[in-house]
Amino acid sequence: MRRNDELAQWDRDHFMHPSTHLAQHARGEAMGRIIRTASGVHIEDRNGRRMLDAFAGLYCVNVGYGRTEIADAIAAQARELAYYHAYVGHGTEASITLARMVLERAPDHMSKVYFGLSGSDANETNIKLIWYYNNILGRPRKKKIISRWRGYHGSGLMTGSLTGLEVFHAKFDLPMDGVMHTTAPYYFRRDDVSQSEAQFVAQCAADLEEMIDREGADTIAAFWAEPLLGTGGIVPPPKGYWDAIQPILRRHDILLVADEVVTGFGRLGTMFGSEHYGMRPDLITIAKGLTSAYAPLSGSIVSDDVWKVLERGTDENGPLGHGWTYSAHPIGTAAGVANLELLDSLGLVDQAGAVGAYLNARMAEALADHPHVGEVRGDGMLCAVELVADRDPRTFFEPDRKMGATVVGHLAEQDVIARAMPGGDILGFAPPFCLSRDNVDEIVEKTVTAIAQAGL
Amino acid sequence: MRRNDELAQWDRDHFMHPSTHLAQHARGEAMGRIIRTASGVHIEDRNGRRMLDAFAGLYCVNVGYGRTEIADAIAAQARELAYYHAYVGHGTEASITLARMVLERAPDHMSKVYFGLSGSDANETNIKLIWYYNNILGRPRKKKIISRWRGYHGSGLMTGSLTGLEVFHAKFDLPMDGVMHTTAPYYFRRDDVSQSEAQFVAQCAADLEEMIDREGADTIAAFWAEPLLGTGGIVPPPKGYWDAIQPILRRHDILLVADEVVTGFGRLGTMFGSEHYGMRPDLITIAKGLTSAYAPLSGSIVSDDVWKVLERGTDENGPLGHGWTYSAHPIGTAAGVANLELLDSLGLVDQAGAVGAYLNARMAEALADHPHVGEVRGDGMLCAVELVADRDPRTFFEPDRKMGATVVGHLAEQDVIARAMPGGDILGFAPPFCLSRDNVDEIVEKTVTAIAQAGL
Repeated sequence: MRRNDELAQWDRDHFMHPSTHLAQHARGEAMGRIIRTASGVHIEDRNGRRMLDAFAGLYCVNVGYGRTEIADAIAAQARELAYYHAYVGHGTEASITLARMVLERAPDHMSKVYFGLSGSDANETNIKLIWYYNNILGRPRKKKIISRWRGYHGSGLMTGSLTGLEVFHAKFDLPMDGVMHTTAPYYFRRDDVSQSEAQFVAQCAADLEEMIDREGADTIAAFWAEPLLGTGGIVPPPKGYWDAIQPILRRHDILLVADEVVTGFGRLGTMFGSEHYGMRPDLITIAKGLTSAYAPLSGSIVSDDVWKVLERGTDENGPLGHGWTYSAHPIGTAAGVANLELLDSLGLVDQAGAVGAYLNARMAEALADHPHVGEVRGDGMLCAVELVADRDPRTFFEPDRKMGATVVGHLAEQDVIARAMPGGDILGFAPPFCLSRDNVDEIVEKTVTAIAQAGL
Repeated sequence: MRRNDELAQWDRDHFMHPSTHLAQHARGEAMGRIIRTASGVHIEDRNGRRMLDAFAGLYCVNVGYGRTEIADAIAAQARELAYYHAYVGHGTEASITLARMVLERAPDHMSKVYFGLSGSDANETNIKLIWYYNNILGRPRKKKIISRWRGYHGSGLMTGSLTGLEVFHAKFDLPMDGVMHTTAPYYFRRDDVSQSEAQFVAQCAADLEEMIDREGADTIAAFWAEPLLGTGGIVPPPKGYWDAIQPILRRHDILLVADEVVTGFGRLGTMFGSEHYGMRPDLITIAKGLTSAYAPLSGSIVSDDVWKVLERGTDENGPLGHGWTYSAHPIGTAAGVANLELLDSLGLVDQAGAVGAYLNARMAEALADHPHVGEVRGDGMLCAVELVADRDPRTFFEPDRKMGATVVGHLAEQDVIARAMPGGDILGFAPPFCLSRDNVDEIVEKTVTAIAQAGL
């Protein structure tokens, strides 16, 4: 085993980390953490420090760490066949079986799945498929995409454009042309605090309709949305939101893409967020929960109606010119099969629903009346606590005070990992589904302490 | 184990394959192959058929199939820690060690590596870094990218735009704005057959200079190029090409991105194609050979000069808003460490050079004078045979005759896998580095037979 100080030096010298202050890291002013092992809901670093990971990595290790069933499946696949490509109809037992398992679990009107590696690349694939679809239908102008402020759909060029968070746009010249953002379905942060939830939903719908009218429905291909806002603040949709939005999309022949990278495969206590909130998407983006992050794998699930047009496209134009070398990688699909089997055999989707409800209830009980807590919200195994300078009138802290990050720092001092969500002072919790009620009690208690330690 | 017919049915019903005729596949008219296992240079399907894979998957299984050293490393990592993220300075022993190993092997003026999953996403990262770089330097207009016709840089939206092959653009509305293609450095296919190689190189340089002048150097950020054209036809650069191109880029302060997804880590018999052809890139894109495809992993290697600007950017603006959940995935980086160790311990880079030279010599000996072979070309463990209707005057076959695909089909009947490269009738060979001279003899002999079977 390498020495810790040697690794730390190499890390500063050579490793460019994602979403990191590069200069501070390279100067050794903001050293990270070298993780050695993990089990259940706990990770352990190379200094022997053990922490409760209440964000499941990046809300992806849904079945929890250290699952030997998945590790064994990966090991067996690596020995039998670590790689072959999936181009021109090639497959493996794992890739075909997983395609079958995904469609067994997806809404009934879905037909096929294309496997990629990350949520970002699956969203890229979906944009390409939608543009192709409208070209085949003879609608070359119908290409623009509407997503939402506060949505998160990746950090690539077009996928980072779909994302509606300033921190992913600034200095990167995003969003690119052809992507527009409509109102975030974030009732707590509504501009007009006098609005009822129903009035706010009516306004979200009116804003969308107005954007479509202004641009022309014949120029708009798709509406991109997470069932509930994830990185944008862990915000369940206001009541009636999807019932108000979907008829507008149907009326204007605009496809609905459900980005279920966070919600897919159980995080809301249901297999998909689409069923949970009554959405009927044309395409579904999946990633994290598909393998619980044990190996990189994403997917684009295509509806029957869209698939028929894609088939027609290849009859007219020959093979589709789209593919990644690592589409349907054997290691990823083997991990996916084992992960979905484990979800079922351990009843983890139900557990996410039940323990998630307990987490949300306990957090609300402990903090909903706190003078610096504006809202405790969540659904399934997702929970957020939004801090405010004042509850009435609703007043946010100055961003420079970094109150969210400060509280998350105090949680880390108590060996609990939460996440300070961007664009506010929002504590995010998204634990593995195998979380126990005792773990919940620990998280809630330490969150209360951390808020107090921050002087609130 | 699942039954073959059951898998075939699920495959047709649910699996959307990359680069496939979707309708034919779903109708069962163009069934693929279900691969079961592989060893050395051979793969084996579920019907027990064994084939010599002379394209190493998609020129990626460089160390060959069935390497237990890499499988064991993957298995051990999966058991110890299958996943933790690399955001905000987090790492693992494998990710940090691999960063170190990549920089030990990269050209001396390179500084850091960012890990992604695929060549496409690494090129996306590089575009973002370059735009950010020019924003930090106060050059907001310097953003356009020049790549080359016949270049291959991925099949995403912007990366498919960098790619200069019609089959990846058609019906997808690519290329997107801001990407321009200059002359392919493909001497055999020069427009003016009377040109000498030196005259053709001078024209490539003049075409580039003319494009820069027309657009304005202050609008052009980068020049994107594989050291030798890969998917565009396996075409080594004409003599003097890089010596002619690089001074133009330097004069206009245009960054050079070397896409070494195919050439990186030994395929040319040298660690990188950049050293092989005397290129001094500012960014290097790596993928396939980094792990020999045993697990998905890519990388963006950043030079000292670019890195200094990125550091300044985070000092001025805070953390970089870029990252993939699976950046530096533990399974991928563990595979990468084991793969690079194996390349060294078995001397596979030298072997790629030596046996590759033998492959190119034997192929030229057997086919260079064939009346329907226009050119046998290659470098290292890359070889191409370009078919023509006539040698003099140089006349290509009608694309509808699909002569390249026909010959590759006859090779497959003899249990040898080659690839029909797009945009011509070009047989591509890119075997694993562990190829033996006996394997070479078999490939060459069967290629001669397959060409005859195609009636040529």
